[in-house]
Amino acid sequence: MTEKKRILTGDRPTGQLHLGHYVGSLQNRLKLQSTYECYFIIADLHMLTTKPTKADIEQISNNARDMALDYLACGIDPHKSVIYLQSAVHEVYELNLFFENLVTVPRLQRLPSLKDMVRSANLDEMPFGLLGYPVLQTADILMPRAHLVPVGKDNEAHVELTREIARRFNTLYDEVFPVPDVLVGDVPTLVGTDGQAKMSKSLGNAIMLSDDVKTVEKKVRGMFTDPNRIRADVPGRVEGNPVFIYHDIFNPRKDEVEDLKQRYREGTVGDVEVKEKLSRAINQFLDPIREKRDYYESQKGLVDEVIYEGTLKMREVASQTLRDAKKAMGLTGAWNRISRKAEDARKKREKLGQS
Amino acid sequence: MTEKKRILTGDRPTGQLHLGHYVGSLQNRLKLQSTYECYFIIADLHMLTTKPTKADIEQISNNARDMALDYLACGIDPHKSVIYLQSAVHEVYELNLFFENLVTVPRLQRLPSLKDMVRSANLDEMPFGLLGYPVLQTADILMPRAHLVPVGKDNEAHVELTREIARRFNTLYDEVFPVPDVLVGDVPTLVGTDGQAKMSKSLGNAIMLSDDVKTVEKKVRGMFTDPNRIRADVPGRVEGNPVFIYHDIFNPRKDEVEDLKQRYREGTVGDVEVKEKLSRAINQFLDPIREKRDYYESQKGLVDEVIYEGTLKMREVASQTLRDAKKAMGLTGAWNRISRKAEDARKKREKLGQS
Repeated sequence: MTEKKRILTGDRPTGQLHLGHYVGSLQNRLKLQSTYECYFIIADLHMLTTKPTKADIEQISNNARDMALDYLACGIDPHKSVIYLQSAVHEVYELNLFFENLVTVPRLQRLPSLKDMVRSANLDEMPFGLLGYPVLQTADILMPRAHLVPVGKDNEAHVELTREIARRFNTLYDEVFPVPDVLVGDVPTLVGTDGQAKMSKSLGNAIMLSDDVKTVEKKVRGMFTDPNRIRADVPGRVEGNPVFIYHDIFNPRKDEVEDLKQRYREGTVGDVEVKEKLSRAINQFLDPIREKRDYYESQKGLVDEVIYEGTLKMREVASQTLRDAKKAMGLTGAWNRISRKAEDARKKREKLGQS
Repeated sequence: MTEKKRILTGDRPTGQLHLGHYVGSLQNRLKLQSTYECYFIIADLHMLTTKPTKADIEQISNNARDMALDYLACGIDPHKSVIYLQSAVHEVYELNLFFENLVTVPRLQRLPSLKDMVRSANLDEMPFGLLGYPVLQTADILMPRAHLVPVGKDNEAHVELTREIARRFNTLYDEVFPVPDVLVGDVPTLVGTDGQAKMSKSLGNAIMLSDDVKTVEKKVRGMFTDPNRIRADVPGRVEGNPVFIYHDIFNPRKDEVEDLKQRYREGTVGDVEVKEKLSRAINQFLDPIREKRDYYESQKGLVDEVIYEGTLKMREVASQTLRDAKKAMGLTGAWNRISRKAEDARKKREKLGQS
């Protein structure tokens, strides 16, 4: 029997997830978890690179729990996969520092994604920690010695850096890390309910995975459609119309969707009917997720336990990796030799009796 | 009784020290250790920022031991001061990562010392870890919450950065760190035996603290003097002449030195006599150091014990500091809440009996 290959992926603990997360990454992860050994990182240390404020840090435990609950509700299986809190794995800080010496400043500055992050976080200048973000990410990925990293196109360059650092470490010291492959997924971005390019909690255009039936109905009723269609008998545009984008994704009744599209184009269906059918479809999609959520929520502390156990598991893995890395570097040796000799000296002195 | 103020200082583990180290820093540290609680760092992690090669790392334990032995031989008292191995203090990696988010890349790039290090280490580009070197140094300094940092003029800017980071942390989270003062010492540079500006082991122009009598005599005999003085009866130049610089520092017989200088200027003394008297002075200076060295070397493992115990002591201090820092940031809270709830859930389940 061959061991399963390992995957590392995850999110910053921003709290509850929405349909955009499902479409963009969760559904892909659900597929992956049966084939691979999956490590899901709750990347709270990454949060500090742009928002190191106390108020944000204090949200971590709640956000981590909300996010993990969403993972579990969607079907991530804690018996198969590891969900862990990054900041509680001490080894990651150490590996990060070692890796920081294996990459140059210009190499990191060439990553366009970081400049975008500076802009979107409204920072005047690049924080040093943010420039080091892809190095910390490398420590995350190489800690469980992941073979594969599922990322979107825009993050491919980060994994390329991880591959470089892994190779550099292996060449400089010893073959410790696999050079992970990028699993470039089509990471679709889901349009917001307001027609904005991206569904986002902070933009207020998101349908949350935890929304109840009524909330979904209300949000769908308020959805942006074709703005030129001022009456139900005006022919409307289906392409790029959020309502139909959602229908295509969440409504499994393809006939119904085709029928609605045709009548919409002809001006023979009202927005109300299109939206009611969409609400029903989204609610049916969310129903099994709600069921699993109820199960996890019914047992107090269960989600915390999943994160706790996952973190302990990750610590075990991390401790082995760090031990191997430090041994390869020759760093364990230094301390071991000193402490062994010190121990020997102490024992010898004790044997001779106190003087 | 007021607690002693704390000092952090130290060196990279480059091995045995020479007279230049004594003049430049050791003699100052000896004075400081009676007034302050001194933490001497063996900064092996800093070594990785310019030389992360396995060959160099493997030298750490021997170099650390040699250096600590020189400290002890010169009179650093392990009962008063802490000598510790940086890489073996896990907390420093964590504190470093938190601090990395509290400083910007341009701020670090403005430090001229780093560019010098890139040049002198023959690197093509700035390693990310090297740019972060003053941040790691900040973690070193703030770990024992040092009040004072003795540095030379060229390192004053680094401590200024430490002060900024301490202030930023205290403002952002909570008053955890003292804002350390710089103790700008006159850090004299000792000329090499060959007349080169700086004594350095790698230039082969150093008299080591561990050199025996014969070696000192041989090295002094070969010393560079006034190159224009081709015979003993030619008047010579005393100013800037390494032999007289050493006499001024190491020969306590001021009359003898004045007499030699006068006769040298007049052309009535031979180099041989000047050098013989210098050898004698240096050997007398080194004699008590040799005696202490013999004491430490006679007990196998004793130097290792000093480093080992110092590191354990530092870990204690560091663990408290990190706990306070993480608590102030709100990071302990996240993990504590998760683990407490997980524990509660587990206990409750056990109480109900396995189902």
